[in-house]
This record gives sequence, C-alpha cells and structure tokens, in this order.
Amino acid sequence: MKHPFFKNHGPFKISDLLNDLKLDIIENLDNNLVVDIKDLQNAEKDHLTFFHSKKYHLLASKTKASYCITFKSLAHYLPNECMPICVDNVLLITSKITSKFYPSSVNDDFDSTVKQIEKLKFDNNIKFGQNVLIGKNVQIGSDCSIGHNTIIESNVKIGSNCSIGSNVIIRNTIIENNVSILDGCVIGKKGFGFFPNNNKNFRYPHIGIVFIGENSEIGCGSTIDRGSMSNTIIGKNTYLDNQIHIAHNNKIGDNCIIAGQAGLAGSSAIGNNVMIGGQTGISGHLKIGNNVQIGGGSGVIKDIKDNSKVMGYPSRDLRQFLKDNK
Amino acid sequence: MKHPFFKNHGPFKISDLLNDLKLDIIENLDNNLVVDIKDLQNAEKDHLTFFHSKKYHLLASKTKASYCITFKSLAHYLPNECMPICVDNVLLITSKITSKFYPSSVNDDFDSTVKQIEKLKFDNNIKFGQNVLIGKNVQIGSDCSIGHNTIIESNVKIGSNCSIGSNVIIRNTIIENNVSILDGCVIGKKGFGFFPNNNKNFRYPHIGIVFIGENSEIGCGSTIDRGSMSNTIIGKNTYLDNQIHIAHNNKIGDNCIIAGQAGLAGSSAIGNNVMIGGQTGISGHLKIGNNVQIGGGSGVIKDIKDNSKVMGYPSRDLRQFLKDNK
Amino acid sequence: MKHPFFKNHGPFKISDLLNDLKLDIIENLDNNLVVDIKDLQNAEKDHLTFFHSKKYHLLASKTKASYCITFKSLAHYLPNECMPICVDNVLLITSKITSKFYPSSVNDDFDSTVKQIEKLKFDNNIKFGQNVLIGKNVQIGSDCSIGHNTIIESNVKIGSNCSIGSNVIIRNTIIENNVSILDGCVIGKKGFGFFPNNNKNFRYPHIGIVFIGENSEIGCGSTIDRGSMSNTIIGKNTYLDNQIHIAHNNKIGDNCIIAGQAGLAGSSAIGNNVMIGGQTGISGHLKIGNNVQIGGGSGVIKDIKDNSKVMGYPSRDLRQFLKDNK
Repeated sequence: MKHPFFKNHGPFKISDLLNDLKLDIIENLDNNLVVDIKDLQNAEKDHLTFFHSKKYHLLASKTKASYCITFKSLAHYLPNECMPICVDNVLLITSKITSKFYPSSVNDDFDSTVKQIEKLKFDNNIKFGQNVLIGKNVQIGSDCSIGHNTIIESNVKIGSNCSIGSNVIIRNTIIENNVSILDGCVIGKKGFGFFPNNNKNFRYPHIGIVFIGENSEIGCGSTIDRGSMSNTIIGKNTYLDNQIHIAHNNKIGDNCIIAGQAGLAGSSAIGNNVMIGGQTGISGHLKIGNNVQIGGGSGVIKDIKDNSKVMGYPSRDLRQFLKDNK
Repeated sequence: MKHPFFKNHGPFKISDLLNDLKLDIIENLDNNLVVDIKDLQNAEKDHLTFFHSKKYHLLASKTKASYCITFKSLAHYLPNECMPICVDNVLLITSKITSKFYPSSVNDDFDSTVKQIEKLKFDNNIKFGQNVLIGKNVQIGSDCSIGHNTIIESNVKIGSNCSIGSNVIIRNTIIENNVSILDGCVIGKKGFGFFPNNNKNFRYPHIGIVFIGENSEIGCGSTIDRGSMSNTIIGKNTYLDNQIHIAHNNKIGDNCIIAGQAGLAGSSAIGNNVMIGGQTGISGHLKIGNNVQIGGGSGVIKDIKDNSKVMGYPSRDLRQFLKDNK
Repeated sequence: MKHPFFKNHGPFKISDLLNDLKLDIIENLDNNLVVDIKDLQNAEKDHLTFFHSKKYHLLASKTKASYCITFKSLAHYLPNECMPICVDNVLLITSKITSKFYPSSVNDDFDSTVKQIEKLKFDNNIKFGQNVLIGKNVQIGSDCSIGHNTIIESNVKIGSNCSIGSNVIIRNTIIENNVSILDGCVIGKKGFGFFPNNNKNFRYPHIGIVFIGENSEIGCGSTIDRGSMSNTIIGKNTYLDNQIHIAHNNKIGDNCIIAGQAGLAGSSAIGNNVMIGGQTGISGHLKIGNNVQIGGGSGVIKDIKDNSKVMGYPSRDLRQFLKDNK
C-alpha cells in the first residue's frame, strides 16, 4: 500500500542499502529488491523489518518480511523465509534505512504547497474562516467548519461534520467524522525521537501518522505527535482537554477522558473507558488496561491492570494513596 | 438582563420544555412561560433554576426562581414560590433545557462574522497589527494595542489601555482596563464539561463568560475556559505566567500570582493575595483562602485555610513537607 | 557595546537619576554621566551596577562599574573606584533606573514595524510560507525555512540552515546555525518578573535576550522568556520537546535533552549532557551539574551534583526513589 503522506523512494537493492551503511553484504543477494520498510506485524514479502527486543519474539516468529535488521542473538526467532541482517545497533541502522526510503519524514519544514482555501474547490458545505491554508490533495468531508489562520497540510483527510478551530496546524493525520479540534492544536508533527550524539543528534524518521477516531475532541493548545514506525492513535469518542501532549506511537482507546495538561511520553497503549486526571504523566512503553481511573497529578511508571483506580507519584492503588496521605 | 454573548431563544412554555424531554407535565402549568435559566443565586421570577446537591441548600431556600429542577429528596428546601421539577438526573436535564435556551453555547465553531480591523471604525487610538480579525459589536477602549493575527470574537468587551499580544483568540469575555493578554492565549472557549456516554458523549452548554479584572496579566499560551452556568473570573492585579490552564467556573481573587504551567481543574474559588507555584495543580470544587502560598509542583486536593503555606502532592503544611523530605 | 534590541536612552547625570527617585544625592557627583546599567560582571567604567546579596561578593569586589546600587551592609565589598549608592530596596531601585535607560524593555507590545517578507530582500535562498511578518533589521542566514503566519520581530538574528515552523513568534533573540524552532513557539518575551504591589504590581524591565546555540531544537508550543539583567541561554545541540517553559535567566548547557511539558522556573544553571524527564519542574536559582539525569515528573528544589541520577518530588537519588516506592 502506498504511504498516505510520505513518498517511498524505493525499491532499493538490498546490496545497495547495506553498502551505503558500510555493512557487510550478505552473499548472493545483490539483485534482490527491497520494496518497503515496515514493523514486524505489517511487513510483507520483499519488505525489510526490524527486531530489537526479545519481548517482540512472537511477532518476529510470524513476520512476513523478507529481511530483518536484528541482533545476532535474536536472529533465531525469525522464520526461515526472513533473512536476518545482524548489526550492533538495530535502531540506528533501521533509522538510516528508513530515511533512505522516506527522506521527507525526517524534517517538518512547513508545507509550501498550501493555497488559500478560497482558491480550491470544496463544494460540500464547508464553512471556513480567513487565511485558511490547505495543502495538496487534502480531503475534507461535508459540513465541516475550519477556523481562521488554520493550516491543513498535504494529504490530510478529515471526515464529515468536523469542527476545526482557529490557529490549528494539522499534518500527516487522518480524522474521522464528528471530530472537534480546538484552537491552537498542532497535530501530526514528528515525534521527539533521535539518537543522542554529542555536537549533533541523529534524528530518526517518523513515518507513522496520527489517526483520530469519530466523535472525539482535542482541546486547545494540545500537541499530538505522529508515530515513528507505527501510528499514534486516538480512539472513538475520546475527549482530550486543553494543553495535553500525546507523544509518538501512543495508542489511546475509545471513550477515554483525559483532563488538562496531562502528558503521555510515547509508545504506551491506553485501553477503553480510561479516565486520566489533570497534569498526570504516563511514562513510555506502558500498558494501561480498560476502565482504569487515574487521579490528577499522578505519575504512572508501571503497567496498570483493567478496572484499577490509582493515584500518586508514582501511582499506586487509590485507597492506598488516600490512606498514606491521611 | 440580556445575555452578553448568547442569544436566548426563550421564553418557552414550561409544558413544552418538559414535554420535549418526555418528563411528566406538572398539572395546570401549561401556559406559564419560562423566560431564562440561571443558577440558584441569580435566577429571578419566571426563571428556571437547578439544585443538585445538599451543600447548596441555603442558596436554594432563598432562590427567586419560579421553577427548579431538582431531586425529590431536595425539593423541600425550596421556597413555596418555587415549583420543584423532580427528576432523576438534575444536571443532564438542566443541560438539555439550557441548550434549548442557548443553542449557540454548546459548540465553539469559529466566529464567521469577523472582519479585518482596518475595515471597522475604532477612532480611539488603537494600535493594531496585521491580519487582526474583529467580530460584531466588539468594544475596545482607548489606547489599546492588538497584535498580529489576533482574533477577537463578537461582543467581546475590552477596557482601555490593554495590551493584547499576537496570535491571541478571545471570545465570550469581558476585560477591564490595563490588562495584558500575551501571545498565543485562548480565552473564553467552552469548558471541558460533558456527560460521558459510550460512543457519543453529551456536551453540556457553557453559558458563563470569562471576566478579567483591571491591571491583570495573562501569560503566553495560557487557556482560560468560560463557565458553564456561572462565570470564570480572574480578579484585579492578578498575574498569570505562561502555559497556565484555568478551567471553567474558577473564581480567582485579586493580587494573586500564579507561576508557569499551573492548572486549575474547575469550579474552585481562590482568595486574594494567593501565590501559586509553577506546575501546581488544584482539583475542582475547592476553596483556597486569602493570603495562601502554595509551593511549586503541589497537588491540591483539599480546601486550604486563609494564611496557610502548603506544598506537596497532596499538599500539606509547608514545614511538614520540608521536614518529611529532609 | 550597543544593546542589540533595546535603545539605551542614556547617558544620564547620576544626580538626575537619583533625584528622580527622590534619593539623596551624593555630594560632588552632579555632573558625572552614567552611560549604561549592567550586572556586576559585565559593567564597565561609567556604568551603574547593582549588588543585592552577599553570595555575589566576589563578583562585587572585582566590578569595574563606577556606581553600584547596594545595601549599606554590603558596600564595603566594593572596590574603591566603585561608588556605592546605598538604598533600602536594591532590586526595586535597580528596576526603576533600568526602566529609565531602557523604557522599551518593560512592555512587549507587538512590533509594529513588521512587513510581509515578500516586500523585503532576502536573496540567500530562504523558503518562506504565507503571511510571514519580519521586523526591522532582522538578519536571516542562508537556506532557512520559515513557516506560515510566523512573526520575527526587529533585530532578531537567525543563523543559516534553520527551520522555523508556522505560527512562531520570535523577538529579542539570537539563534545560531542549524536550529529548529517548531510550530507555535513564543521565544524572547519578557519574563514573569515584577515587584508585587497591591492594586498594581510593578513590572521590572527585561533587558536580557534569548540565545539559542547551534544544532538545537525547540518543540511545539514551547515558551522561552528573555532574561532580566542577564540572558536566557540554550546551549548547542540541546533538544527541547513540546510545551516546555523556560523562564527568564536560565542557562542550559550543551547536548541536553528535555522532555515534554518540563518547566524551569528561572535563573537556574543546567550543565552539559543533562537529561530531564517529562513534566519535571526545576525551581529557581539552582545549579544542576553536568551529566545529570532527572526522572520524569520530578520536582527539583535543590542543587544537583555532576553525574547524579535523581527522581521524585522533591527529587532524590534515583535508587532511593525506587526503593521508597517498591
């Protein structure tokens, strides 16, 4: 499938990809073409994938990718049809190859293709403000409202009956029906991901997108970053208050309520019907179950089971928190 | 009194209001007209009010409203002149009736009546930037400065000698003299209030406004939401730093100082001369006394008495906090 | 040296400066001219400086200033060539005199000299969006990208190969090469500094600037305030995530990484290679050493030594924090 936002500059010969990185070429592969780079789950035949942590070994054992960047110690988990490319730094090499496929996903210079919305043809009852800028191939459903000075960059797709506020910036994002994005949000920029390096960090590409499910609402001044390899997802009927930060790769379920100034650090999975109090922070790579309630100001640094009520920094059982603080 | 921002679509016959909601009609009221909906304190004869918690029983006993949505268990607190309308979910029914009176207060689509300020006549020495958009019936006092790309929506009233920054959005707000609103603020949007409901939450209307007293300052990127039934109030000579979030219905006193990234969850009352440290969070429905000092990073979940110094999460006496953390 | 952003309205006769403040005139100084006001370290002959705390006594003893506002109890630290001007409130008097030298540094009304960038001549391969506003004497290096609706106020200096996002406001700032400023940032506004005063606070002038070193990145919606007397500094290759607030006078070193929604209260010094987790708050006037790691959600209220790992509120040794919270 074609990437909805970033041009794939492949296919590349596997030998060329490895040569460029000064990696040893695996024998007899010189003419094989690599068509795309995807995560373990989504990769197909002739794709390259990556596998950097034992905790993904089940996914690795079932990947359909033809090539996989991995550590020597993990290579044995891969199916026979997937050729391991063993390296010392899986994520760095993966980033470099991803940048080759999708060079435009590394930086987020403004979209220079935008035009004033008046000059474009949207005949499906869209109400728009002044100085609204729309990029190439943007799709907007019927009966939407788009506020003043808002910028919707190329290829963004917005459903019907959405209300987009003023001073909003949206890129690399797909929005379903009946969604409200309030004033001043920035949705779909690259995540805060890079390999630290003295004098000059190495930014890795972000080829994931932001997806916002129907009936959801994003409060004023919130920022939602797009994913690196996978997507950042806001479920259906999930409401975010003002000044919230959702970092790259987070997946938030349906019917969640997240109060003002909360922040999610990245790559966490939040279940359905989760309530998160104001100013709560959730560390990266966590799993928060369904029907969880997290009190305001909490700092969550561990997974939380379904139906739990927690509060505190670090967060613990709510009754325990209240008892500790009598 | 006419609502300064939202058109009142009433009066409605009480029987029609109740019929629409499929509530039983109270006998013999068919032809009575309800003129407006207000809180217990501000309601007048021929108004409808609501009473949902015993803690407001004193206000309830003195209300001048002719009708009151309440629980059967609370109805006896109302004066004889006030007819109780007993329901199972007071707030939900109140919201639905409020939406009928003030349908434009539910959503915050951008103001499509705005014009470039150059096309309007303000002859009282207003200095303005480029692309400034002003709605209908906006009043701006003399000697104000309004920055680039700022949007002031219909009926907003700004006093004299105010400095409004660039990229600011103001709606449903009354601002007194000598106030500074710095760049990127969003003032007066609807609060984060709704009845959670699977698949589609029910948003309740926000007919309150934001009021900002004289000599106050609001820092960059701050958000102040308007009230639901009552108003959100910032007192006189109260200074807010950057990236602060003031949710709906908060009342903040005079001469307060609130440092960066603090957040108030809603419906709290903050006294005069209160100092709130950076990143402090204050839960909803609390009463913070006069001359209170709250250390940075605190999480306040209980009322605080006059003249207290507190710190911590949850906040406690400052000396105790410092002792606990020696 | 000429101030890069604020016009110096001096020189003033020392007698006039003191007369205006109704301070006693020191005999025989009537005709001496004061050329500028600077901090102890940067003041030169014929400059005025200030000295308000014993902890700066070493700097005071070496100042080259000709005059120094100080307390009677500190005057003996000053060198013979520096005439003490003893007052009861050093900072207030300093502010008042600074305001006299630099009246335009007190308020931040929008820059009315800006023009649409198309009307200016930048012939060094600058890519710019729509509605970009540029003040007088702005310098922009080659190969920069400047997004839509961005405002760069007078005298700002931007290096080569910088990427400035959309809806950004920059004033009183010097930016080196290869810097990214993402969407919606406000850089260089006055700090949150004033003398509290019932009915009307007294704002002190901010004559410091913001300096951002090469290869750095500032995330979306962040705010960096300029310094009061000294500058606010972001080192080289230092990356800030979204919604971060850096208050006035902070000095941040090189190769630092600061995660989302962190906040620095003002006048702290952060070393090199420091990692600061999301939502962390750092109090004012602290010294954080080199190679320090601070866990997410921490509240730092004390100095931290080189190479420490800390977490918690208040922050403590990381192992201790984890042990306390097992």
